Amino acid sequence: MSPIKAGIINVTGYIGSDLARLLYQHPQVELESVTGRSTAGQELADVFPYLSKTRLSIKDELDSNINVVFSAMPHRSSIEVVPSLLKKGMKVIDVSADFRLKNASEYPRWYGFDHPSPELLKQAVYGLPELHRDDIASATLIANPGCYSTGAILALAPVVKERLICPDIIIDSKSGVSGAGRALSLTTHYSEANENVCAYSLEGHRHLPEIEQELEKLNPEFSLSITFVPHLVPMTRGILSSCYAKLRGGLLDGSA
Amino acid sequence: MSPIKAGIINVTGYIGSDLARLLYQHPQVELESVTGRSTAGQELADVFPYLSKTRLSIKDELDSNINVVFSAMPHRSSIEVVPSLLKKGMKVIDVSADFRLKNASEYPRWYGFDHPSPELLKQAVYGLPELHRDDIASATLIANPGCYSTGAILALAPVVKERLICPDIIIDSKSGVSGAGRALSLTTHYSEANENVCAYSLEGHRHLPEIEQELEKLNPEFSLSITFVPHLVPMTRGILSSCYAKLRGGLLDGSA
Amino acid sequence: MSPIKAGIINVTGYIGSDLARLLYQHPQVELESVTGRSTAGQELADVFPYLSKTRLSIKDELDSNINVVFSAMPHRSSIEVVPSLLKKGMKVIDVSADFRLKNASEYPRWYGFDHPSPELLKQAVYGLPELHRDDIASATLIANPGCYSTGAILALAPVVKERLICPDIIIDSKSGVSGAGRALSLTTHYSEANENVCAYSLEGHRHLPEIEQELEKLNPEFSLSITFVPHLVPMTRGILSSCYAKLRGGLLDGSA
Amino acid sequence: MSPIKAGIINVTGYIGSDLARLLYQHPQVELESVTGRSTAGQELADVFPYLSKTRLSIKDELDSNINVVFSAMPHRSSIEVVPSLLKKGMKVIDVSADFRLKNASEYPRWYGFDHPSPELLKQAVYGLPELHRDDIASATLIANPGCYSTGAILALAPVVKERLICPDIIIDSKSGVSGAGRALSLTTHYSEANENVCAYSLEGHRHLPEIEQELEKLNPEFSLSITFVPHLVPMTRGILSSCYAKLRGGLLDGSA
Repeated sequence: MSPIKAGIINVTGYIGSDLARLLYQHPQVELESVTGRSTAGQELADVFPYLSKTRLSIKDELDSNINVVFSAMPHRSSIEVVPSLLKKGMKVIDVSADFRLKNASEYPRWYGFDHPSPELLKQAVYGLPELHRDDIASATLIANPGCYSTGAILALAPVVKERLICPDIIIDSKSGVSGAGRALSLTTHYSEANENVCAYSLEGHRHLPEIEQELEKLNPEFSLSITFVPHLVPMTRGILSSCYAKLRGGLLDGSA
Repeated sequence: MSPIKAGIINVTGYIGSDLARLLYQHPQVELESVTGRSTAGQELADVFPYLSKTRLSIKDELDSNINVVFSAMPHRSSIEVVPSLLKKGMKVIDVSADFRLKNASEYPRWYGFDHPSPELLKQAVYGLPELHRDDIASATLIANPGCYSTGAILALAPVVKERLICPDIIIDSKSGVSGAGRALSLTTHYSEANENVCAYSLEGHRHLPEIEQELEKLNPEFSLSITFVPHLVPMTRGILSSCYAKLRGGLLDGSA
Repeated sequence: MSPIKAGIINVTGYIGSDLARLLYQHPQVELESVTGRSTAGQELADVFPYLSKTRLSIKDELDSNINVVFSAMPHRSSIEVVPSLLKKGMKVIDVSADFRLKNASEYPRWYGFDHPSPELLKQAVYGLPELHRDDIASATLIANPGCYSTGAILALAPVVKERLICPDIIIDSKSGVSGAGRALSLTTHYSEANENVCAYSLEGHRHLPEIEQELEKLNPEFSLSITFVPHLVPMTRGILSSCYAKLRGGLLDGSA
Repeated sequence: MSPIKAGIINVTGYIGSDLARLLYQHPQVELESVTGRSTAGQELADVFPYLSKTRLSIKDELDSNINVVFSAMPHRSSIEVVPSLLKKGMKVIDVSADFRLKNASEYPRWYGFDHPSPELLKQAVYGLPELHRDDIASATLIANPGCYSTGAILALAPVVKERLICPDIIIDSKSGVSGAGRALSLTTHYSEANENVCAYSLEGHRHLPEIEQELEKLNPEFSLSITFVPHLVPMTRGILSSCYAKLRGGLLDGSA
């Protein structure tokens, strides 16, 4: 089998650069082309020395011979570029939230914009292989899940699908700092984040509608009520989510 | 006012040594006497160089002229020593759990021993100044609260007292590592605890009965059901507890 | 003795806010007045909740009744303000580098500007109490030492003064991240600084001329050659400096 | 090419378990057999859940069909086992120090025992591929370098080989904590190592003779004098070594 030719849009964030590392090592993939806005024209090895073996230059635009493109652009930016990539016949794996939610009306509320391509929301497959493995294999547009969403959905999927729990669910997540990306902020300044732990997005976090969407699909008649509170803990990578729900009545005594 | 003469039993753990630091700085206290088992005979300054100004030797036994003694012994050990200190007329502030629980029958379940002095449990004051300030001032035996208990009780006291919430409460706590003390374990080994976060004591943590006891006192007719899950996060000090409960029905629309 | 009335200029950086914490607790000081540029008009407690007891508002200008003012402004800015404070009769403790170097000709090289007040450089006392305790007590302008300088000078002063070592000295310093201040940078971004250690300022760090100046004063005929390499390690506070020099010949065999 | 059948002795330390992770992923290797003392009889997946895919049981003894065995035993223990493995025709890669030093007389000084098999020291190849790639390929006994040694030798090899520097070299190394292994100690207790940095082994660290041996081989007439001071910094993995030496006279002005 000839290797898949892969490209990465916006290689200079944490997701893009880690994708480059993984794709470069993948035995069935050839990483052919990477783009970046502020770093276009530089060698990938100069920006990230640990990627020096890739021997790739960061360009303004993707090469045209790419089979699969990973778009690592921020929310709202990906949506501008993905349609033209699809038209060129590329398979697109988008890591932003722009194609994760099936219901276009969620975008104004959670992301502050009207979604310009609701038809692509129908076409997109939510890229969680444990739930949608077959659809992912055949999809042309894959919307990769959010970090918190991945952990919470995988933890809760079995008990939601089998309705082993009551519908009130609390998800208390503890995340490393790299999830906030490479953009600078006081919250992710070392001296602020170190020896500290904090809750945030108490008014509602953007990953909640993804969690609701995927869990509800697993058991459409089960009306869930989810409270999700993310926390930042002083580590770079990883998320632990403690999920709380009551066992459904009668399960333990066999009367259910 | 002449200064209070204070002593510390078991000064060589994290609690004892930090007590030494705080008491040494206190303008109304003279730290007169410290004891330790494995370190008896050494200078306090040799074990903890940052305490060099104290000019104290670690002894086998407390001096007899102490007014207030802090017992920083482990659970089950404190109980052996405290009665004789009280008889000598010393005021005792105990940091173990040996006098925290009012109901002696909780000790076998949570600590694995029958409490030998139930009458002292009645006499002891739970040392949380926000709840028992006056009693603490006049007490001869003060049982200092557990770390998780302090955070959870202070967070929940106002809404429990005023019954603003439903009785099902979830406490998800994130603690630094020093709470586990100076004794070595794989869980608190640097390479295991760093870049990691974990839940523990899922079957029930010893601080739960303290939390229940103090919150129930605030509103005895309010039958609480508390789920408490502690987590270890990679920092040395501090605890953040996220507490979840539903607002009592009718509170927001004024019908309550 | 009536307490000293103290003020802080630029209270909103790490140095300014920690000064506020320390001065507030000091039994002989009353913290009366704090200023900040971006935060003027806010309550100090709103910017730093742990300073809520200070009950101070952040203003544009210092109150006029201040006895001692701490200037926590960046390099080059302090120099603009300090002369007028001195004229008002205030004692000034400056934490920038603007008055640390005795030789005005060092400023263009290390700080990129011509020093406008060389006469103040003569007047200023280098605020390292272990070396200049008496001068500090009587000074009106005190230039507080750099962080690396403090550690390196204190480590080397005894052996330089007594000429126990050869003149080639290497100082390898390991610093926590808060020394870089509260301003954001990729170097101090949590996910970059955590699980990392790096050397920087290989071409020469600004604290070197301070170290040279103070060590040379201790033994003016001793011609030192100092290599100083700072490193950033993943902790918030603290510096450890390992200093390397050869013992002077003959010291050990008594022939010196 | 049929895959190499590999085994690991003492898989339950940090080196052994990380070897298992790497060998399991290696496309040309089949990890066939792992041993451990305290964990013999358990599944590897039960001790290290992240190794669950290996489907290996921890045994008392290696399978006999192994081509290459990695011995991850502590110093002094490896030497007891390696000769019999060699006799069985296995290629041995030893990660202890038992075969690193060519000069048997160094063992009493640095490791406290007389080396029982000096002839194996001659046979063993120091496993640093940048220096001994061809010898490693044909060797039957490979002594893997120490962690500090690897960093220091690679940093200094080019300038030592070409004699670009003077012979007085200072190596100041900053290491993560996992190098101390999985055995518990107060030094590697989280609350002690976090927010801390310290120098250790000031009287001489065991990796120094390896560094000397390998650098001297590169330029036997160049008489080196090396000062090596290791430091512990609060991170799990990685070492940064800052190496100091003077350029040889005349190099810069062309007179050398």
